[in-house]
Amino acid sequence: CATSPTPAFYTLSAVQHIEQPPGASPIAIAIDLVTVPELVDRSQIVTKLDANRVRIDEFARWADPLKSQIPRVLAADLAEIVPGAIVSTVPQRANDNAYRVTVDVQNFDSLADGTVTLVVIWSVRPPNGGKQIAGRSVVRQSAVGSGYDGLVKAHSRALLSVAKDIAAATQSASRL
Amino acid sequence: CATSPTPAFYTLSAVQHIEQPPGASPIAIAIDLVTVPELVDRSQIVTKLDANRVRIDEFARWADPLKSQIPRVLAADLAEIVPGAIVSTVPQRANDNAYRVTVDVQNFDSLADGTVTLVVIWSVRPPNGGKQIAGRSVVRQSAVGSGYDGLVKAHSRALLSVAKDIAAATQSASRL
Amino acid sequence: CATSPTPAFYTLSAVQHIEQPPGASPIAIAIDLVTVPELVDRSQIVTKLDANRVRIDEFARWADPLKSQIPRVLAADLAEIVPGAIVSTVPQRANDNAYRVTVDVQNFDSLADGTVTLVVIWSVRPPNGGKQIAGRSVVRQSAVGSGYDGLVKAHSRALLSVAKDIAAATQSASRL
Amino acid sequence: CATSPTPAFYTLSAVQHIEQPPGASPIAIAIDLVTVPELVDRSQIVTKLDANRVRIDEFARWADPLKSQIPRVLAADLAEIVPGAIVSTVPQRANDNAYRVTVDVQNFDSLADGTVTLVVIWSVRPPNGGKQIAGRSVVRQSAVGSGYDGLVKAHSRALLSVAKDIAAATQSASRL
Amino acid sequence: CATSPTPAFYTLSAVQHIEQPPGASPIAIAIDLVTVPELVDRSQIVTKLDANRVRIDEFARWADPLKSQIPRVLAADLAEIVPGAIVSTVPQRANDNAYRVTVDVQNFDSLADGTVTLVVIWSVRPPNGGKQIAGRSVVRQSAVGSGYDGLVKAHSRALLSVAKDIAAATQSASRL
Amino acid sequence: CATSPTPAFYTLSAVQHIEQPPGASPIAIAIDLVTVPELVDRSQIVTKLDANRVRIDEFARWADPLKSQIPRVLAADLAEIVPGAIVSTVPQRANDNAYRVTVDVQNFDSLADGTVTLVVIWSVRPPNGGKQIAGRSVVRQSAVGSGYDGLVKAHSRALLSVAKDIAAATQSASRL
Amino acid sequence: CATSPTPAFYTLSAVQHIEQPPGASPIAIAIDLVTVPELVDRSQIVTKLDANRVRIDEFARWADPLKSQIPRVLAADLAEIVPGAIVSTVPQRANDNAYRVTVDVQNFDSLADGTVTLVVIWSVRPPNGGKQIAGRSVVRQSAVGSGYDGLVKAHSRALLSVAKDIAAATQSASRL
Amino acid sequence: CATSPTPAFYTLSAVQHIEQPPGASPIAIAIDLVTVPELVDRSQIVTKLDANRVRIDEFARWADPLKSQIPRVLAADLAEIVPGAIVSTVPQRANDNAYRVTVDVQNFDSLADGTVTLVVIWSVRPPNGGKQIAGRSVVRQSAVGSGYDGLVKAHSRALLSVAKDIAAATQSASRL
Repeated sequence: CATSPTPAFYTLSAVQHIEQPPGASPIAIAIDLVTVPELVDRSQIVTKLDANRVRIDEFARWADPLKSQIPRVLAADLAEIVPGAIVSTVPQRANDNAYRVTVDVQNFDSLADGTVTLVVIWSVRPPNGGKQIAGRSVVRQSAVGSGYDGLVKAHSRALLSVAKDIAAATQSASRL
Repeated sequence: CATSPTPAFYTLSAVQHIEQPPGASPIAIAIDLVTVPELVDRSQIVTKLDANRVRIDEFARWADPLKSQIPRVLAADLAEIVPGAIVSTVPQRANDNAYRVTVDVQNFDSLADGTVTLVVIWSVRPPNGGKQIAGRSVVRQSAVGSGYDGLVKAHSRALLSVAKDIAAATQSASRL
Repeated sequence: CATSPTPAFYTLSAVQHIEQPPGASPIAIAIDLVTVPELVDRSQIVTKLDANRVRIDEFARWADPLKSQIPRVLAADLAEIVPGAIVSTVPQRANDNAYRVTVDVQNFDSLADGTVTLVVIWSVRPPNGGKQIAGRSVVRQSAVGSGYDGLVKAHSRALLSVAKDIAAATQSASRL
Repeated sequence: CATSPTPAFYTLSAVQHIEQPPGASPIAIAIDLVTVPELVDRSQIVTKLDANRVRIDEFARWADPLKSQIPRVLAADLAEIVPGAIVSTVPQRANDNAYRVTVDVQNFDSLADGTVTLVVIWSVRPPNGGKQIAGRSVVRQSAVGSGYDGLVKAHSRALLSVAKDIAAATQSASRL
Repeated sequence: CATSPTPAFYTLSAVQHIEQPPGASPIAIAIDLVTVPELVDRSQIVTKLDANRVRIDEFARWADPLKSQIPRVLAADLAEIVPGAIVSTVPQRANDNAYRVTVDVQNFDSLADGTVTLVVIWSVRPPNGGKQIAGRSVVRQSAVGSGYDGLVKAHSRALLSVAKDIAAATQSASRL
Repeated sequence: CATSPTPAFYTLSAVQHIEQPPGASPIAIAIDLVTVPELVDRSQIVTKLDANRVRIDEFARWADPLKSQIPRVLAADLAEIVPGAIVSTVPQRANDNAYRVTVDVQNFDSLADGTVTLVVIWSVRPPNGGKQIAGRSVVRQSAVGSGYDGLVKAHSRALLSVAKDIAAATQSASRL
Repeated sequence: CATSPTPAFYTLSAVQHIEQPPGASPIAIAIDLVTVPELVDRSQIVTKLDANRVRIDEFARWADPLKSQIPRVLAADLAEIVPGAIVSTVPQRANDNAYRVTVDVQNFDSLADGTVTLVVIWSVRPPNGGKQIAGRSVVRQSAVGSGYDGLVKAHSRALLSVAKDIAAATQSASRL
Repeated sequence: CATSPTPAFYTLSAVQHIEQPPGASPIAIAIDLVTVPELVDRSQIVTKLDANRVRIDEFARWADPLKSQIPRVLAADLAEIVPGAIVSTVPQRANDNAYRVTVDVQNFDSLADGTVTLVVIWSVRPPNGGKQIAGRSVVRQSAVGSGYDGLVKAHSRALLSVAKDIAAATQSASRL
């Protein structure tokens, strides 16, 4: 029984370290469970050949499920963008004065021509009963360089832009 | 045993981007769990040879279950048709002032001669106790070009027409 | 490991479209879960060689379980026969002013000589506490042409006649 | 391993149609879940070689479990014997003014010499709190002709005689 | 894969029919779930080579579990010994004015020399709160003729003697 | 793979019949679930080569689990030692005026040199709230004759001595 | 399929019998469920090659899980050290006037050079609400002789020293 | 199939013993369940080839899950750093006057060039309702020497630095 060739494993990455002015007062942010489309909720990486044809690649896999990668990377991005942010992805442990963020990924498409589309509806609920702010981010990124490596980096950049939308909403809510 | 040839994977697609006049006030729409006939609730694509004979094709598959594709595509269609719409397919997360949409797909037929029939009963319940509007959409579309690609595109168009019925009901309810 | 020859798949069909005078006020009908005899509650099609001998054909199968086909076809038939009918087979979603229909299939026999017998006890409960009407339909149909195709069409016709009985009961109840 | 030869499948049958004077007022009868001895609660047909030796035939099988055949056949028999009877085998659905019948099959023996013995304790509870009537039917039938076909027909006749006992009890209760 | 030779199947038997004077008023008896020692709670028939050595015969089996045979045979014996007895082995269905019998089989031994020992502790609780009568029956029977057939008949006779003890207790309680 | 040779099966045995003066008033004793060390809670018989080395013999097995053998044998021993004792091992069925016995086997060791050690902590609670008597029995027995037969008989004798301790406690409690 | 060579099985052992002055008043001690590090919570014996490298030996196994061995051996040690002690490892059965002992094994290391380290945090709660005494025992023992036998004996000695700490705490609490 | 070569097993290690001034009053610390990123929540050791490529090594494994190693090692480190600390990793057993520590490991990265990054958000809640102190530790360590041994030691050092952060927070809280 010849073992099948081992697949290549990929993982999304957060933005590199952004120097922050020290002494920002801490802000607690809690990211709730993230939903992803069933189309991509598998370990194989899925690419769209055209609007209705899809390729499921047995030999290019996500090292961990998108459902856990996306909150992890968003948390790391927000921790870099929002000064003093302590961002948890374990909702049960978030204390009461945390900003509650929900994220529903509606499209996580990687097209054969290297462009990626990320459509996310998100909401931010400030602590002690503040008004919930909802938003819909539609982000397109073109992969730099060919192959899955380029696609994964493009998705990472797209996630960063969603993180920035969420950060803006959080900071505007905190000024209300 | 020689491993079986890999099947082709298909997925329904939403309408391309429709330019919307900016500044529409946001409308929250939540699509509840969608039911589909057991006949097509499998990964193989099912086609009707005649009224009572059915072909189940092991080598032409839906990339993700119809039960998750249909709400995803309806949500994307509604987001394009209804100005300012933020459409969620995660009912537990919909807030109270969302329009609640239920969709029961009663027929999702692909006939050998390329025509597809979509029979859907749907309902729209406006927020804060508005009267529920129910409807039954019966849509026939002929596939352009042969093969599954044409069929899948035809079903996508049929879904768009159901989305338009639902959008109309939503907007008429919002004017009451 | 030679794969077994693929079986033929069959499905019951509803009556073709019946022109209805437009503008009928909508009637909501909800069909509750349908029970079928265990004898035929399997994917293989069962035929009776004689009163006590039965043939279970591995290569002639129902494309979807009878438990879901029968309510689907009855709903489609009722939608054609009863003007303005919106018929749901998802009881949990039926609203209160729906006519509640229960269907217990006691015999679903296909005899070797091509005759089919359908014995169904059914009940219709009008909305807002109307008196329940119960009935027992015993329907015999002879298949036109040989083979399973003829049998499946005969069963479809038998189901239509049961649908007519239920429709009559519904309309008589609505005139009370 | 060569697949085993397909077994023969048998099923109990109800009495043929008995002409009933029309216009009998309907009587609702609900048969509760039936218990059968574990000895015969399997798909293989069991025959007694002598008082203590038993033959379990892999190639002669009941097409559906005795636990569902017996209520189905008793219901069909009672519907023929009791004028206007609508007999349900789905206890949860029986309405309140139904006669409630319980059936516990204690012996369902098929002897090698072709005689069958059926020992059943049953009870009939009339609607709106009538006194429960209990009984014990011990029925012996000799098979006509050899082989399983004869045995199954004999058991069907034995069941009919139990149905007559239950019918008599039901009618005597209804005259009280 | 040669199939293993089919084992011989055995079952306990009740006493043959005992003529009863007609017209005895009916007595309801309900036998609760019976416990048997784990040593014999398997389909293979277990025999004791000596006090501490046991033989588990793969090719001599009980056709149905002792846990269901013993109540079935006790019920049949009691129905023959106690005039007018209707004996149920389905405790949930016993009505209130039934004598409640519990049976715990502590030893069900078949010795190599053909003697069988049955040790049973039993109790009878008369209806409407009568005093519970408890007892311990220790019965030894020698098999007539060799082989399992003799052993099974001996166990059947031993069970009949336990049934007589229980019958006596029931009748003495009914005279109180 | 050739099927493995069948193992030898062993079971603990109770004391032979001890003549009792008749007419002793009945005493109800109920033995609660017995705990045994995990080391011996398996079908293979375990022997200690030395204080820390253990042999697990695949071909010498307990015919039934020690967890059910030990209460069964203790019950039989107590029934012989305590005049008029009716001893149940089905705690749920014990009535209120039964002596409640708990048994926790802490060591059940069979040493290679043939000596067995049984360490049991037990308690007896008299009916209607009598004071609980607790005890710890440490019993050593040397096997007579070699092999497992001797070991099993030695364990049976050790159990009898524990039964005597329990019987003594029961009788002393009954005299209080 | 050649069967793999049978592994050697080991078990921890308690201190040999220590003569106790008779007539000590009984003390009830109940040891609660013991936790062990996941690293050693398997049947294979684990040894540390160095601080960060570990050897998992398929052919040297614990005869029963450490989670059950450790409480059993601690109970036997305490029974020898504490005069009159009746020590149960079945917490649900301990009566109210028992000293409650909890044991959390944090390190159970066997180093390649033969030294074993046992780090245990334990607590003793005297009956009727006495103050809980907590402690942390760190014990190092060098194996006498090579191989697993020496290691297992060293662990047994380490456990005895923990038992002595617990015994001391119990006796000091009993003098309060 | 030839069995695969046995993998090497690794485990994190705590700081060696740090001499503490005796007589420190005991401090109870309870570490709650630790969360780790799914990327590394497997037995294979995961290393990052670059920001988005990951290597999963079948032949280099954690001897026990990181989810149990990390609390065990943090507990041992804290026990060495904080004088008098008794640190439990069994939250249900921690008594009320324990400092409650939560640890969420957000990044546990081992880069191909030998540097490891550990990002942990943690919180310390003093007993009797003290204010919770939250923190985020980002620690980078370079492995000394190549191969997994170096990486595991680097991670151990990184964990020690997180333990020091937590110890500082605990001691500052205890001075409030």
